[in-house]
Amino acid sequence: MKIYETSTAPSPRRVRIFLAEKNIPMNYVQVDIAGGENLSDVLRAKNPMAKIPILELDDGTCISETISICRYFETLQPEPVLFGCGALQIAQIDMWQRFVELHLFSNVGMCFQHTTGYFSDRMKPNQEYGLEAGVQATKFLDILDKQLSQYQYVAGDAFSVADITALCALDFARVVNIRLADNHVHLKRWYALVNQRPSSKA
Amino acid sequence: MKIYETSTAPSPRRVRIFLAEKNIPMNYVQVDIAGGENLSDVLRAKNPMAKIPILELDDGTCISETISICRYFETLQPEPVLFGCGALQIAQIDMWQRFVELHLFSNVGMCFQHTTGYFSDRMKPNQEYGLEAGVQATKFLDILDKQLSQYQYVAGDAFSVADITALCALDFARVVNIRLADNHVHLKRWYALVNQRPSSKA
Repeated sequence: MKIYETSTAPSPRRVRIFLAEKNIPMNYVQVDIAGGENLSDVLRAKNPMAKIPILELDDGTCISETISICRYFETLQPEPVLFGCGALQIAQIDMWQRFVELHLFSNVGMCFQHTTGYFSDRMKPNQEYGLEAGVQATKFLDILDKQLSQYQYVAGDAFSVADITALCALDFARVVNIRLADNHVHLKRWYALVNQRPSSKA
Repeated sequence: MKIYETSTAPSPRRVRIFLAEKNIPMNYVQVDIAGGENLSDVLRAKNPMAKIPILELDDGTCISETISICRYFETLQPEPVLFGCGALQIAQIDMWQRFVELHLFSNVGMCFQHTTGYFSDRMKPNQEYGLEAGVQATKFLDILDKQLSQYQYVAGDAFSVADITALCALDFARVVNIRLADNHVHLKRWYALVNQRPSSKA
């Protein structure tokens, strides 16, 4: 079993932290996304959307999408639980994972791609859209701060996959100069807390 | 228990079809999203992202995000299974649900919002971005057609939540004039198949 990834990209880090929390060892194969290696026929055969990370099982079966790879390992090895237990907690963690992914992680990514022109060899940057994505990502920080004023972690009182998405999104946000503001006291408390976990170095 | 929704919007239809497949009855409360009712303090208290659908439990706890609501019911009542069984199938269904949601459903939604100005009272449409989203949605149909040349349903040989997302995305795509092409023979075969299910009328 191995994972095709790019060590500097934010999505693969989500998987590495998830596997560190589960204490699951993994073989990693580096893909040069800046050079377009993910767009090759070989990689497209593993993931038709031409993105990393990709988990390749020993029989050649491939799973892509960061969170789907994480779900695979959650089912194989449930402990420690990172997607929740019981209908309500599972739904709440899924909801907050999605809130963070859609409104923070993805907006930061769109801001990066559309304002820096990093992938301008394969897409046409839309500066106005990129700037708006950055505005929306920044706005979401207030919602996340409010949530963390009520709960220890992003999706409640247990560390979960939603915290992993949020940590990777916030660290990546620095590349587009989106940072926590002085009034984000609850987010700062949480950020220090999750950074104490050994998995945060993965 | 009740669901706040808008009967004409594509996301709530995903939940209605899912509940019809599970044969779970539900009370629906209509929200006037065109009139901005979802932006009210009352609705924001139920979902900070101000979107529908929202599931409200009898104790007032709210779950939003279409797929998180579906997961709630999958855990409460596993049969018929719509998110898969076992690590591999669960991951594959999750992956294809996400492929369809991110590359078809969301792109169609962005194309609609940014080219029609439907929500121009609350957001600034970016015509160029909307048109590009439509191009990407159309491109994804070829990938989905290829997948359906190999499997009966979107995520394999079992009907799943990925089919529900795809059906609702394709029907909604008509509003931005994105339709199946003559060469999408496998998608057409699949579309007829899923439309035979009573749930498709939900």
